[in-house]
Amino acid sequence: MPVVEDIGDGSQDSLLCRVTANGHVGWGEAVCSPTAGIAAWITPMSHSGCHPVIDSVLGQNLNNPTDIKRIYNLVRKNSFYGLLQSDLLISGIEIAMWDCLARSLEVPIWQLLGYKKSEPKLPYASVLFGDTAEETRSKAVLINRAGFKAIKFGWGAFGTTCLGDDEAHIFAAREGIGQDGMLMIDAGTVFKDNVAEAAKRLPALKEANVHWFEEPFDGYAISNYGELSAYQPKVALAGGEGAHNPYQAKQLIDYGHVEFIQIDAGYIGGIGNAYEVAQYAKGKNIKYVNHTFTSQSALSSSLQAYAGIKESNISEYPMEPKALCQELTVDKIEVDKAGMIYAPDKPGLGVEINLAEIKKYLVDVEIKVEGKLLYYTPTL
Amino acid sequence: MPVVEDIGDGSQDSLLCRVTANGHVGWGEAVCSPTAGIAAWITPMSHSGCHPVIDSVLGQNLNNPTDIKRIYNLVRKNSFYGLLQSDLLISGIEIAMWDCLARSLEVPIWQLLGYKKSEPKLPYASVLFGDTAEETRSKAVLINRAGFKAIKFGWGAFGTTCLGDDEAHIFAAREGIGQDGMLMIDAGTVFKDNVAEAAKRLPALKEANVHWFEEPFDGYAISNYGELSAYQPKVALAGGEGAHNPYQAKQLIDYGHVEFIQIDAGYIGGIGNAYEVAQYAKGKNIKYVNHTFTSQSALSSSLQAYAGIKESNISEYPMEPKALCQELTVDKIEVDKAGMIYAPDKPGLGVEINLAEIKKYLVDVEIKVEGKLLYYTPTL
Repeated sequence: MPVVEDIGDGSQDSLLCRVTANGHVGWGEAVCSPTAGIAAWITPMSHSGCHPVIDSVLGQNLNNPTDIKRIYNLVRKNSFYGLLQSDLLISGIEIAMWDCLARSLEVPIWQLLGYKKSEPKLPYASVLFGDTAEETRSKAVLINRAGFKAIKFGWGAFGTTCLGDDEAHIFAAREGIGQDGMLMIDAGTVFKDNVAEAAKRLPALKEANVHWFEEPFDGYAISNYGELSAYQPKVALAGGEGAHNPYQAKQLIDYGHVEFIQIDAGYIGGIGNAYEVAQYAKGKNIKYVNHTFTSQSALSSSLQAYAGIKESNISEYPMEPKALCQELTVDKIEVDKAGMIYAPDKPGLGVEINLAEIKKYLVDVEIKVEGKLLYYTPTL
Repeated sequence: MPVVEDIGDGSQDSLLCRVTANGHVGWGEAVCSPTAGIAAWITPMSHSGCHPVIDSVLGQNLNNPTDIKRIYNLVRKNSFYGLLQSDLLISGIEIAMWDCLARSLEVPIWQLLGYKKSEPKLPYASVLFGDTAEETRSKAVLINRAGFKAIKFGWGAFGTTCLGDDEAHIFAAREGIGQDGMLMIDAGTVFKDNVAEAAKRLPALKEANVHWFEEPFDGYAISNYGELSAYQPKVALAGGEGAHNPYQAKQLIDYGHVEFIQIDAGYIGGIGNAYEVAQYAKGKNIKYVNHTFTSQSALSSSLQAYAGIKESNISEYPMEPKALCQELTVDKIEVDKAGMIYAPDKPGLGVEINLAEIKKYLVDVEIKVEGKLLYYTPTL
């Protein structure tokens, strides 16, 4: 984007990965600081466990889902040590591999995962809190009028001023959406590991009948989630967007006792890992929810993993993406008349990248090591 | 290094961070793929939680330990989302801040942490398995003769061929070191999350009387550590070098039931985080051990956090570092006549970076974004 604002909005940038195999092309987006992701792609080897991601991906065969898993495992094995960024980069590449493979077979990705049907999901509008409680209320009214039965407010100043302000935002959101709407609150990790401080918000959250309280703590602070889950009044916890591998998501379920596990395929290592968590959650009667705050391509990626799980029937729907993420795809996953969305019933991700439109956003990056040009931005 | 081998040896590269404040200079090493770490330093902002690390560090005041914690917290707050590599980069910067501050106050870092005394630690020689069991035995004999009472063998082909081969290496190591030596085995995460496969090694490990069995699993696979800890025959587990924040280390203690927690200050976010884990471990009667496989500067960094904890009396001592890590410092932490080592009783880290020697290893890196040079290697 020409201007990037210092706000909790991940739609201001995109690390878009293109995979070519057997004459087919696939695309995937990583939730990843782009320049750091590019560096993970080409950084010279330091250690058998610290290879650049390129070493495990380029030249591999891609003929079936087993190949995708094999290539993912290669990256984890060859790049796990000192190259944490590889977990994010591979997420975009893995999604692009699924897209490429499923397009070549002319089936949706969710079919390759073994689902028979793409089940309806209730999309919730995911937006930032207003600067004032009144602004939060107005946003809720507008979104409600636009036909959304569910809204999530998050980030902004929540947790950074005082309890009274947070309560005002919570009640304003409820007022705006009406008594029947489904309301969620996202603290954006603001309480870090301070359970007592987060717990002070529980009475208001309970009174406002919120469906879940999301990410009160640092994504790694799993035992703090577990502690808060035992507090009264009891409010269902949600989290998981910070999971960059399936282990962390499972731990958030088992030790953190979240009731909603929210996974971003572009963060957790791709669609295969997201699917693994979705199945694990299903086995534990935990609701799986996608995390998506950016483009329609990212939305489709994150819907695939649980497309066929009927019980997990809620979906995060990005409402205010910046122009880059709006223009990134030709098509959109539209909300139907019943107010529901579906993972597309089309080959691959089922959305087309709009190369002509996004060309103008392409940023030239060059990385040279010892005078050798290891990376330069390819043409679109 | 002119040549980097594809082996489990982290001493083949170094991301050395230099901090200047109030006219003083400090140095710290991050266990971090250098080019990826540099990218985390300067990558353009994507999101309020995805700032380049430079935004939270440059221009800050550095007058006391509280400032170090404050700057670390800023990095976590401003760079936690989509920039995982920042956890590793900040480790080197944080260490350099301690070095800089302690030098300005003319005290060792461990004194700034509140320790009254630097307690003796039994250094164990940390080496790679031989290519054959016979080679492992010979290495053990030589190291034993060099005066080391404790040896750890790790990585190599362990876990990648068959149970018989692993058992042969374990028994050869025991034979080489003798019945009285302290022997540790490091699986280098090779079993990923396969508890049954790791458990097959327990009888041999028990019979060879190993002091601990290290990193059988992926560093994130905490519940698998917990499962293996309940197997018979019982062998003490060790792990933690993959912890890039204190939450993970505490979870490995609480849920993984390791009996030894091994922390690399250059990975976990620096000396402050390592200290936090050391104190936590002490409170739970778990032995804290440094993880160090590279330079003497890294060894000193990792010794600081538990320098004053008498009960945690073992230390990993790098035995076979490549030339870069041998030449990195002017001085060494020598093993004394009683076979013990100490965190240095000198200002800062107590070891001097040998700029004249390591100049030849300096690698030119250039990162350009939209034609703007965001990073180039500074002169030494």
